[in-house]
Amino acid sequence: MPSLSLSSFSFEDIPTAEVDAAEKLYGALAHDVRALNDVSIRTRVDQARVDRARALVQEATDLLAEDAPSGPAGIHYNGEGRSWNWGNAVVGVRNAVAPPVELAWQDDDCVHAALSLGAAYEGPPGSVHGGVSAMILDHLMGETASARHTRVTVTGTLTLRYVQPLPLGPVRMEARIVEVNGRKVTVSGWIAADQPDSSPAVEATGLFIVPRWAEEPDAPSGIGSLD
Amino acid sequence: MPSLSLSSFSFEDIPTAEVDAAEKLYGALAHDVRALNDVSIRTRVDQARVDRARALVQEATDLLAEDAPSGPAGIHYNGEGRSWNWGNAVVGVRNAVAPPVELAWQDDDCVHAALSLGAAYEGPPGSVHGGVSAMILDHLMGETASARHTRVTVTGTLTLRYVQPLPLGPVRMEARIVEVNGRKVTVSGWIAADQPDSSPAVEATGLFIVPRWAEEPDAPSGIGSLD
Repeated sequence: MPSLSLSSFSFEDIPTAEVDAAEKLYGALAHDVRALNDVSIRTRVDQARVDRARALVQEATDLLAEDAPSGPAGIHYNGEGRSWNWGNAVVGVRNAVAPPVELAWQDDDCVHAALSLGAAYEGPPGSVHGGVSAMILDHLMGETASARHTRVTVTGTLTLRYVQPLPLGPVRMEARIVEVNGRKVTVSGWIAADQPDSSPAVEATGLFIVPRWAEEPDAPSGIGSLD
Repeated sequence: MPSLSLSSFSFEDIPTAEVDAAEKLYGALAHDVRALNDVSIRTRVDQARVDRARALVQEATDLLAEDAPSGPAGIHYNGEGRSWNWGNAVVGVRNAVAPPVELAWQDDDCVHAALSLGAAYEGPPGSVHGGVSAMILDHLMGETASARHTRVTVTGTLTLRYVQPLPLGPVRMEARIVEVNGRKVTVSGWIAADQPDSSPAVEATGLFIVPRWAEEPDAPSGIGSLD
């Protein structure tokens, strides 16, 4: 069983401007694929149209596969403090499976996010899947524990309380550091419908750990949570 | 804030054979879109190829949108005991964002699943996102609580313990009913690498609730967990 260490991260000698340009190019592709994911769930076109759409999708897939290294995207960083985790299941801007969640730091101890969750994230009819709420809360809370990416954290335990259904559509989230005790960081969080007077649908508490190897002086900066 | 009730489910007067045929037709589309999701993360083709791939994806999206009702997929059932939740974020066979997880009942109290998680489900480098493990455990455990879909359950609380990193690739999961106390069902579960001698990477305990409305005599059958 592999364990995580400093060598899990890839140093890339790429200027930040080039990283940003690649993120924009491939991020636009992921944006389009998200729209395809959404309509693929809802469509009821006839077999001829489905067959034609499948042929188009397969052609696009073959084209993109002409130069695509095997394996996952990983986490990378350059010498300018820029890091990128484009494949991340929650925040990866190149991952059409990720909503993606965009984080907004309020201060070092509190992170907000607002996003819209559509048909691809359904559980109960018309509602966000409880597991999706768990997934994105885990990530938001881990990022919060990282104190604006000044330390690396991994999830130790996570407890979720489901209070009421969360309708699909705009949602907002908040996570906040409750306590720091050595390498242990306790974080609380919630997710709610983004509507006036809405109260949390899911509340969470988590214990996040700073791994020993992440305290080494040559640890890469700007990585943050290892969710 | 909407709440769930019997009317959340849509009765459809469609023979099971027709449901199965539609599932096969649109499920094949989702299968292809999953491959596109995967390669979109990993590709490094040049801008001309990205532009061409985007045009193909947009053409497929437009074609599928020619007849696509707005809103999520929902949960449907017919008069023959067949139910379908094709948009579900974890098990939805028409949802390319879902892995999808396939459930295998061992007995009424124990459910297994085995699947492969690729680049789209990454968190730490080379590892499954902790939130993804939470998401699919929540679903598996909720289904387990439903006792082979003989009762409807919703998640009350869920606690996850992260023991070690879970490598991307083949994984296996198990959930088991620990206790039933009136409308409260306690379930334990775990997920591990699907390799000889691998031990759980994430362990979970959950409390699942049978909603009062689900005990009414005209509740639809075959629905199971409302994750």
